[in-house]
Amino acid sequence: MLRTHTCGELNMSQLGQSVTLCGWVQKTRDLGGTTFIDVRDRYGLTQLVLNTDTDAALREKSRELGREFVIKVSGKVLERTNKNLKIPTGEIEIGVEELEILNAAKIPPFLIEDETDGGEELRAKYRYLDLRRNPIRNNLVQRHKIGQEVRKYLDALDFIEVETPVLIKSTPEGARDFVVPSRMNAGEFYALPQSPQTFKQLLMVSGFDRYFQIVKCFRDEDLRADRQPEFTQIDCELSFVTQEDILNIFEGLMRHLFKTVKGIDIGPLQRMQYADAMRLYGSDKPDLRFGMPFVELNDVVKGKNFGIFDNAELVVGINAKGCAEYTRKQIDELTEWLKRPQIGATGLIYCRYNTDGTLKSSVDKFYNENELAKWATACDAQPGDLILILAGQTDKVRKQMNELRLEIGGRLGLRDKDQYAPLWVIDFPLLEWDEESGRYHAMHHPFTSPKPEDIALLDTDPKNVRANAYDLVINGTEIGGGSIRIHEKGLQSLMFKHLGFSADEAQKQFGFLLDAFEYGAPPHGGIAFGFDRLCSIFAGLDSIRDVMAFPKNNAGRDVMIDSPSTIAEAQMKELNILTTI
Amino acid sequence: MLRTHTCGELNMSQLGQSVTLCGWVQKTRDLGGTTFIDVRDRYGLTQLVLNTDTDAALREKSRELGREFVIKVSGKVLERTNKNLKIPTGEIEIGVEELEILNAAKIPPFLIEDETDGGEELRAKYRYLDLRRNPIRNNLVQRHKIGQEVRKYLDALDFIEVETPVLIKSTPEGARDFVVPSRMNAGEFYALPQSPQTFKQLLMVSGFDRYFQIVKCFRDEDLRADRQPEFTQIDCELSFVTQEDILNIFEGLMRHLFKTVKGIDIGPLQRMQYADAMRLYGSDKPDLRFGMPFVELNDVVKGKNFGIFDNAELVVGINAKGCAEYTRKQIDELTEWLKRPQIGATGLIYCRYNTDGTLKSSVDKFYNENELAKWATACDAQPGDLILILAGQTDKVRKQMNELRLEIGGRLGLRDKDQYAPLWVIDFPLLEWDEESGRYHAMHHPFTSPKPEDIALLDTDPKNVRANAYDLVINGTEIGGGSIRIHEKGLQSLMFKHLGFSADEAQKQFGFLLDAFEYGAPPHGGIAFGFDRLCSIFAGLDSIRDVMAFPKNNAGRDVMIDSPSTIAEAQMKELNILTTI
Repeated sequence: MLRTHTCGELNMSQLGQSVTLCGWVQKTRDLGGTTFIDVRDRYGLTQLVLNTDTDAALREKSRELGREFVIKVSGKVLERTNKNLKIPTGEIEIGVEELEILNAAKIPPFLIEDETDGGEELRAKYRYLDLRRNPIRNNLVQRHKIGQEVRKYLDALDFIEVETPVLIKSTPEGARDFVVPSRMNAGEFYALPQSPQTFKQLLMVSGFDRYFQIVKCFRDEDLRADRQPEFTQIDCELSFVTQEDILNIFEGLMRHLFKTVKGIDIGPLQRMQYADAMRLYGSDKPDLRFGMPFVELNDVVKGKNFGIFDNAELVVGINAKGCAEYTRKQIDELTEWLKRPQIGATGLIYCRYNTDGTLKSSVDKFYNENELAKWATACDAQPGDLILILAGQTDKVRKQMNELRLEIGGRLGLRDKDQYAPLWVIDFPLLEWDEESGRYHAMHHPFTSPKPEDIALLDTDPKNVRANAYDLVINGTEIGGGSIRIHEKGLQSLMFKHLGFSADEAQKQFGFLLDAFEYGAPPHGGIAFGFDRLCSIFAGLDSIRDVMAFPKNNAGRDVMIDSPSTIAEAQMKELNILTTI
Repeated sequence: MLRTHTCGELNMSQLGQSVTLCGWVQKTRDLGGTTFIDVRDRYGLTQLVLNTDTDAALREKSRELGREFVIKVSGKVLERTNKNLKIPTGEIEIGVEELEILNAAKIPPFLIEDETDGGEELRAKYRYLDLRRNPIRNNLVQRHKIGQEVRKYLDALDFIEVETPVLIKSTPEGARDFVVPSRMNAGEFYALPQSPQTFKQLLMVSGFDRYFQIVKCFRDEDLRADRQPEFTQIDCELSFVTQEDILNIFEGLMRHLFKTVKGIDIGPLQRMQYADAMRLYGSDKPDLRFGMPFVELNDVVKGKNFGIFDNAELVVGINAKGCAEYTRKQIDELTEWLKRPQIGATGLIYCRYNTDGTLKSSVDKFYNENELAKWATACDAQPGDLILILAGQTDKVRKQMNELRLEIGGRLGLRDKDQYAPLWVIDFPLLEWDEESGRYHAMHHPFTSPKPEDIALLDTDPKNVRANAYDLVINGTEIGGGSIRIHEKGLQSLMFKHLGFSADEAQKQFGFLLDAFEYGAPPHGGIAFGFDRLCSIFAGLDSIRDVMAFPKNNAGRDVMIDSPSTIAEAQMKELNILTTI
């Protein structure tokens, strides 16, 4: 090795030892006759002291140094006069005897410090420099640790990691596929997998019993902070299990990860039915770091000639604890915020429960204080609270109220990144109606099984068929989801029919799976976790970008390597394709 | 769980317990009144006994069963009369009280047994059934174990697994890229990585210090038994290390894997210079499970008016121990085998050292017995041995002799799949001349550093510049390779120049790396192992197909899912491409 130690490991126990360190110059201070250098590597920071007064060669060399130069130094471990007890190496310094510059460095385009002055675009172009910053590197080190612990936990439970192919077949269902022209099969294309779903089910048919894989998946969708064209899943499947078994095993995984990676015991996970999540939080991924459940007020508010409430399918309120002091201006701003097209509310009704015990609403014309007192009781409001109410069509108003609840929770500081509120949302509907295509879509995916007692409803009341499907939600983010699968050809064919596939289409796209179900398919189920999202939750980040080493921007570009890019005519010719641009 | 135990875990210690098993019907024997069923899962096989005489329902149910039906049975653990001590569950059987058919199965198209009657094409189409066979499943279980142990070993040495992108940029160097048209960047393409080479080097520039990844890579090349369009690498890179450090760390990895996965101590690894490997074995990946080194005979054989030897650049022999009894016919066959276009030898000279001490060659006209005795001495031959000699242009004759040596080694049973002879081949040449393009290519890749003492030869004698490059070879197969990289912009630019890149081309293709080298790049090096090949060596297989769950055939097709396939016009339109077929 070029070094005897890393920059993070020396302390008082090595006093007097001769050591060699390698690393990057973090900063240099010349105190006239003595130069101090902080040298940095992945493991930490060590102070170097150079007696430039007496050693001319060292003086010359040290003057060449700039930020981010790569150096190798040898010397003795000395006790520091001014100790820095904040870092593990802060009690010692190295009295440098030899200094070698391993590589020079131009001045970096932004500060390589925890708080940098670099803009997003610049840091993306020089991602290799951005990755030098502690916060980003720590995210990736933690990601590595999470991956290792996932594998340890699953391996101990007899799960086998099996790699499934990346070059597969395009299917028209779901999101858009990325495709890969085949040179050897002219005019044909592979597709990159959106998930290894059918392969993992085939592995169950093969008797693999317990499968997992930490695997790249691909979706050609428009991008946002928590979406990338390529992302990573922790993908799992098991045979001969019930939903209960799956929830228990993966609740165990989550508790293991929080314990080993973050040192937190998150305790047993809550469970909530989809219908309750929608009713109480207007979302299938409620943020349960705080309460503020929806209160349905139809019975309390209707019949007082206030048309907006009387004509509404749903009138729903939340209690913004301690917000009675909100000014009219603040409430107006909140109303405008709710009216933005992204949310689309038509208005906001409020009722202040003043600290003096009086009640004051924005609809005093229709409701007297006695009536408002009933609202307060329904919402469990106390003096000092503010009741916020939305009214309208049920699905819409729930979505709007979900946004409002999250906003108020945020303003009240109830969404602390160091608090974790994981839960299982269960009993999802099997199907959801898609206005655009005028047919039902699978809410999870076409391989999810209906609850046996609901199968009869498939023909008569498809909307109310519940699935054996479940999501893991942490802090309002869907971290994973899965289901007990269909394992019988007949039921799978019926499901395809309900999703609008003709028998021919179903056979063409998924014939291999339907065939496989005829050769002894075991009952099975599984789950997949968004590894990037899980890592971002662990890192306390809203975006998945900074838990990935080399993410793409919102246009799907890697600005560092300048990709995608044009390719040579000859290459296209070999692939039997042309571009139409 | 649907079961209380797996089919591999019950033994005498559970006698009398009530258990429930799930699995596949391996076979059924009806002995009139009693039916025996072997039920199988991933973990093993358990014998079921059904008293069909007294239980009519059980009798009816058991008559429906066929091979590969999926069943669930409950009953008591009983001691067997006829014990089968070859399997862990062979002392017990389950006295079945309840039998449930979880799924029926059509008769499989081939036998689900260790030795199957299915042809390659049929097994590929029904890969999910082929994967049920023990040998294939065991390969994949072992692959999982190797992967876990790789991660454990590297994690303990502070390596961090970092995922690098799959959608990257096409480069004209090396093998053909698979490309992916970008919808959001019309007319542009991503490429799938042939390896994460530049990304892992950037991670070193970022100060990650020790990186690894078990990662899919892609090459659009014509396929063979040990090549697939997508394959998996154990990819590693380290900073501040010498070649010696890398060899030691990864020798440690190999010893760890052999120890933990196969229970074998392979001992310290041999090392051999590239030049010696070529001289002694005619290959940069010699199979050292057996000796039979080349003996260069120029000095011994020349000058006796035998034109073939006199005109040859190299005359080289091997000693086929104990093969003096080979008949003339056998030797003729060997000669014909050598003359096939794949090998291209023009002829084979032999010299028998008969057990009676006499020497007899195919060129007795030119060499008397005294002279032949010198051949024997040079080749360390004893009575009973056969000396085989080839002559011609050095590179060609070495290649041919390599083939002959491997063939003879195989015939003599010296290439035992359960024997392992790993070695490091070191000091590879930096460049190799490519006749076709009329220029030098990088033997390893363009990022490999020349040995410092040879840099001066780059201009004068490029062929003899040695690289800081090394390969790990096991049993004649290259399992891994790596190098100390260039970490200075100047040297990297010089290297690109020698490889025929203009400065513009180099900047366009690899500008991000050249730029990165200016911002404080540490000295670094690394290695990548072919994970599929490593697994196939561990499994004793010549092909990598059966250590992959879903391999493609020689035409790059997955015949099970029928991929690649045509895609919809609309999809192509969105991607701004057309096919020319």
